[in-house]
Amino acid sequence: MAKNVIVAQSGGPSPVINSSLRGIIEAARAFPGTFGTVYAGWHGIEGVLKEELLDLSAQDADEVALLRYTPAAGSIGTCRYKLKDKQTEDFDRVIEIMKAHDIGYFFYIGGNDSMDTCNKVSKLAQERGLDLVAVGVPKTIDNDVGDSEFKLIDHTPGYGSVARYWMAMVQNANEENGGSSPADPVLVMQAMGRKIGYIPAAARLADPNREMPLQIYMTESKVSAEQLLDNVNEQLKRDGRCIVVVSEGFEVGDIGERKDSFGHTQFSAAKITAGQKVVNLLNDNGLPVGGAARGQVPGTDQRMASIYASIVDLDEAYKVGQKAVEIAASGENGWMATILRRPGFIYNVDFDKVPLEQVANSERMFPDTWLSPNKIDVTDEFLAYAQPLIGEDWPSVPLVHGRQRYTRFKSIFAEKKLPAYLPQAARK
Amino acid sequence: MAKNVIVAQSGGPSPVINSSLRGIIEAARAFPGTFGTVYAGWHGIEGVLKEELLDLSAQDADEVALLRYTPAAGSIGTCRYKLKDKQTEDFDRVIEIMKAHDIGYFFYIGGNDSMDTCNKVSKLAQERGLDLVAVGVPKTIDNDVGDSEFKLIDHTPGYGSVARYWMAMVQNANEENGGSSPADPVLVMQAMGRKIGYIPAAARLADPNREMPLQIYMTESKVSAEQLLDNVNEQLKRDGRCIVVVSEGFEVGDIGERKDSFGHTQFSAAKITAGQKVVNLLNDNGLPVGGAARGQVPGTDQRMASIYASIVDLDEAYKVGQKAVEIAASGENGWMATILRRPGFIYNVDFDKVPLEQVANSERMFPDTWLSPNKIDVTDEFLAYAQPLIGEDWPSVPLVHGRQRYTRFKSIFAEKKLPAYLPQAARK
Repeated sequence: MAKNVIVAQSGGPSPVINSSLRGIIEAARAFPGTFGTVYAGWHGIEGVLKEELLDLSAQDADEVALLRYTPAAGSIGTCRYKLKDKQTEDFDRVIEIMKAHDIGYFFYIGGNDSMDTCNKVSKLAQERGLDLVAVGVPKTIDNDVGDSEFKLIDHTPGYGSVARYWMAMVQNANEENGGSSPADPVLVMQAMGRKIGYIPAAARLADPNREMPLQIYMTESKVSAEQLLDNVNEQLKRDGRCIVVVSEGFEVGDIGERKDSFGHTQFSAAKITAGQKVVNLLNDNGLPVGGAARGQVPGTDQRMASIYASIVDLDEAYKVGQKAVEIAASGENGWMATILRRPGFIYNVDFDKVPLEQVANSERMFPDTWLSPNKIDVTDEFLAYAQPLIGEDWPSVPLVHGRQRYTRFKSIFAEKKLPAYLPQAARK
Repeated sequence: MAKNVIVAQSGGPSPVINSSLRGIIEAARAFPGTFGTVYAGWHGIEGVLKEELLDLSAQDADEVALLRYTPAAGSIGTCRYKLKDKQTEDFDRVIEIMKAHDIGYFFYIGGNDSMDTCNKVSKLAQERGLDLVAVGVPKTIDNDVGDSEFKLIDHTPGYGSVARYWMAMVQNANEENGGSSPADPVLVMQAMGRKIGYIPAAARLADPNREMPLQIYMTESKVSAEQLLDNVNEQLKRDGRCIVVVSEGFEVGDIGERKDSFGHTQFSAAKITAGQKVVNLLNDNGLPVGGAARGQVPGTDQRMASIYASIVDLDEAYKVGQKAVEIAASGENGWMATILRRPGFIYNVDFDKVPLEQVANSERMFPDTWLSPNKIDVTDEFLAYAQPLIGEDWPSVPLVHGRQRYTRFKSIFAEKKLPAYLPQAARK
């Protein structure tokens, strides 16, 4: 008999996270004997714990289809709530919810941490005699899910779109900086990606033939503030202008850092940003040409701008969602749906599965060989990897009254069957 | 006999500044007996002073047509160089250049200051017996050219596109903020427009029915930091989240300001931004809900993103350029081409002319009656004014290899005929 489904999202959203969600919803309909009602955890696992389950099966089919063009996570919500091992009450509650709502399938859309959580929920369910199939669906703009060898996953849905964003952003910045250089010779732009530089690296897609005065500062390059100053000032003497893309996690040497009470560097909610620090460093030191450095921090724009979504990424994110459903329909437990690139000249991928356990225990780095010897550029090998991910066309984001027409779900929730519950980590 | 043409741009660019340039180049071809070679001052009046005159008549017609989709000012450059009254050597030099290159027509694309300069050049030319026709072409994203009564100009080319940018940005922010509110309940976005709030006001176009938890802080609203704190915290208690759009010129009360050596508040090249100050204010005070405020500063993205250009704005910018040529062809001197809105229900405009003198001596404000009584919103009257400017469709920005295909002019310059010259304001 058909069992019900819970799908939940975790962590920062992407322009294509909803395409995976759509893939799951629409694919589940193709197996009516297997899958019953599809619920979303409203704001991820927090909604599961609170028994806030949005009924996705009751939504209009066109609104579901519009998830293709709807960016970020407003439709079902996401959260940063972590299910840590010691939160045994939370795990118990998840199992209770699954039982109360006759859930047989759990799809968790997220990054490495989420794959770990998905794996734990799956194992715990088995221990408790609950016949639950848990499948992970990879998502992160940082491209840091999986392994450095690209055997578990070639690239994560979400990355192609943020890469396309940076391609367009740097092209535009080149028009801006080229036009305005007498007054604004340096344009500093801060990219997301705290530890891993796939996002700032994508700036090079704007200029594969290296005709722009573009410098890229990835966290892992470990370039010093002094070297950055020298690099930019040399470029200014040579070209009169410079475009600087800096990772939000880039350490700008000795100009002072701010940490939170746990000793972690603060980023988007910080008192100052890496981008601003670079602007201040350049201006305090004095430029060798007229004008001043200016900076910008696009922030969440790079993960919420639907028009910059890559259609390759949108299609792949959808199919990864479909693949997760196919895996679940086969009854196999403990897998993550994945994208594997076929070898050879022609870009093509297979939608496959890898064990959650392996993904949960892996870590991806930016390959050393893809960082140029000068530490402020990437190699052509990286470009060959990234270029196919951005696609050739604009997505057809629908406009109504000139405004982007995004999915609007009706507020139809599953009836609550259990007592109210306060998630463990939210307690005082 | 045909006389040659100089066109020059001044100040910050826009996504449609090149459409006006294209309008001028293409219209001039329609009057072959009147207009000879069309030159651009390379980086505006600085290029005129330095005798750096890019030959636009020698460029490929397709590259000229691609100016429609090419944002910012990379094609012919702009500058912030001001021709002040006391810089008499500069004015003399401009006249010498005009004589040396047989210039009969001068088109100056810019804001109020530029219309004043254009007017002065025109008068001086007459005094020196030079038969020069000078025509101003309005451009500014701030919509601050002309008068508060909208008699000289209804709206400036450039504004509709940045308005469309903010419509899209706030729609996307609503998906992002709605989805991520458990961890990121406040998203602060800084808009351009230092003194005048047309740009942040356009955020309301994203949500004309006022369904989003959106607050708009324009410089002229004079809302205090305390009031801002109260407003945001009340919204958080009510809705659990809040989207804040703040002008870069908004004064965030008592949390400290940074001025440059002239006493002017520093903006994009400043040590800290208004947006960052608002984020810090909220986080230092503590939010009434979980999570932290995060901020972003899109900066020049709002004036360089071709895909957010309004097709209405693109068309009008082009026609304003054409109109300027039509005015010049009639031999009349001292006018600015303008856009006047016809009265009545149906949005329609006339391309007309107004005296440069009047524009140079006028100042536009954001009408008091368009700011809501609560000071953090705009009225429906403003929406009725702004809605037609953003258009109904995406522009068809061409992609090649997935990259935006922008105009690339060949480096063909007029032969220099005069001794080298160092612009007055650039001298030590």
